[in-house]
Amino acid sequence: MDLFFDKTAIIGVGLLGGSAGLALKAKGICGKVVGLGRSRTSVDTALAMGAIDEAAANLVEAVEGADLIIVCTPVGSIAGIIADMESMLDEDCIVTDVGSTKRNIVDAVEQVPRARTRFVGGHPLAGSERKGVQFASAELFEGATILVTPTPATDISATAKVQAMWERLGGRVLVIDPVAHDHIVARTSHLPHVFAALLVTCLRSMSQENVRLMGKGFLDTTRIASSDPEMWADICTNNVDEIQEAIFSLRKDLEEFEICLNEGDYERILEFFEAAKRMRDSLNNEINSE
Amino acid sequence: MDLFFDKTAIIGVGLLGGSAGLALKAKGICGKVVGLGRSRTSVDTALAMGAIDEAAANLVEAVEGADLIIVCTPVGSIAGIIADMESMLDEDCIVTDVGSTKRNIVDAVEQVPRARTRFVGGHPLAGSERKGVQFASAELFEGATILVTPTPATDISATAKVQAMWERLGGRVLVIDPVAHDHIVARTSHLPHVFAALLVTCLRSMSQENVRLMGKGFLDTTRIASSDPEMWADICTNNVDEIQEAIFSLRKDLEEFEICLNEGDYERILEFFEAAKRMRDSLNNEINSE
Repeated sequence: MDLFFDKTAIIGVGLLGGSAGLALKAKGICGKVVGLGRSRTSVDTALAMGAIDEAAANLVEAVEGADLIIVCTPVGSIAGIIADMESMLDEDCIVTDVGSTKRNIVDAVEQVPRARTRFVGGHPLAGSERKGVQFASAELFEGATILVTPTPATDISATAKVQAMWERLGGRVLVIDPVAHDHIVARTSHLPHVFAALLVTCLRSMSQENVRLMGKGFLDTTRIASSDPEMWADICTNNVDEIQEAIFSLRKDLEEFEICLNEGDYERILEFFEAAKRMRDSLNNEINSE
Repeated sequence: MDLFFDKTAIIGVGLLGGSAGLALKAKGICGKVVGLGRSRTSVDTALAMGAIDEAAANLVEAVEGADLIIVCTPVGSIAGIIADMESMLDEDCIVTDVGSTKRNIVDAVEQVPRARTRFVGGHPLAGSERKGVQFASAELFEGATILVTPTPATDISATAKVQAMWERLGGRVLVIDPVAHDHIVARTSHLPHVFAALLVTCLRSMSQENVRLMGKGFLDTTRIASSDPEMWADICTNNVDEIQEAIFSLRKDLEEFEICLNEGDYERILEFFEAAKRMRDSLNNEINSE
């Protein structure tokens, strides 16, 4: 497969967009990288870091003549941006994104005739609680799982090219249905973010002095509560039903735990923690064995 | 202050008991260390590691002639063990423990005439999700916060000695009321353990294949779900009312979040994540500035 992109357009030059630019160039699989950013500062930083070669003044300038477009803007804006670029898309251009939710985006893009066959949804499980292009790195995707979500409408060759691109950047690509994607990440990512924030919120009535009386466990458990609030408000409002369902399921388990607690039922509380430990330990084994 | 203990008795030779033995000896502030353990394996390992010098066959043998007793057994058993040793306690012996809850223990020991003045409750914020004396280390308490919970009944000199002992082992000692202790750790430690386990439990209906689709965030957030189930069942059943109250408070915040989610109220969800981030970031500053 010819894996070289003459002109790559990166829409949204933040941590992921900047890292994609750096990684594509480091692997030598792209010509010119053109970036479009919301803020002058991000664009200037991306230029200075060499994450992009040129800054585009607008979407037309960015997209014109591109054979690869990676949309790295907040999830709520991705489908709209793809609809906006429809008339400018070159015949052989492929389009992907890095949004943390997929159903809304894929469903909306399916309504955009000139984009629906060439758009391949993507979601790199990479990033961090740090925000901004200044933290971008050519190695961000090395060893990261990249979820790719084509539909029956997607060109097979477009999917193959996006998959090959991520693999060259070091990612382990898994192809998954967009509906299954949103179901799973609601439980493995969105729910933990909500509860990390809730656990931190629980400290609000405590004095600064008392808050210091915590061990490493609290800090680990709530690390992701330092993530970008705009990104997480955006993600939550784009996966409402799955997050609601996941909360509903957790709440049922919580209620059962509370009954055991109220009854001082040591045995059942022990079983609860034992089952959780078995499951959590198996994840360690899973990951260490890779 | 004369900080030397001729005979130290360690009741319960696990991670904390073993580490206390190793640390006391490394700092040269003890003579003989005698250990009493539940399992032959733990005791043998503790002997082989030099965490204890002798294994006691029973409580009488362990406690006889000791001037320092550290009870490192599960929280639910500590007060009973101290009551059992009442008649054997030497006049100048001091007794402390490492239990993660304090009210129940302190309240019960206050009813034990020969122990109440010389017992000083302790809780090192040290340890890990790994269990057992084989992970013990002389450095476990270096830089760790040690919560010490004397009451008006406690001899001032006993408190001073326990405090000095922990400081020599590298701990930062904070003296705190046992009621305040249990209120705070319910929120900074017990609640996070319960919710880490609940978040892991939420994956139970997912296939092993799908569970792999998770980022580093999930693993960090749920690391403590690998902790010792017996220890956590024990802790929860010894701090029921405070954990119930903390869950009640978290649930109210959760319900508010769900209303916002249901209404698609981006602005209020953003505020929720922003407030949590501010609080969480301030903890990083707190800890980095030390």
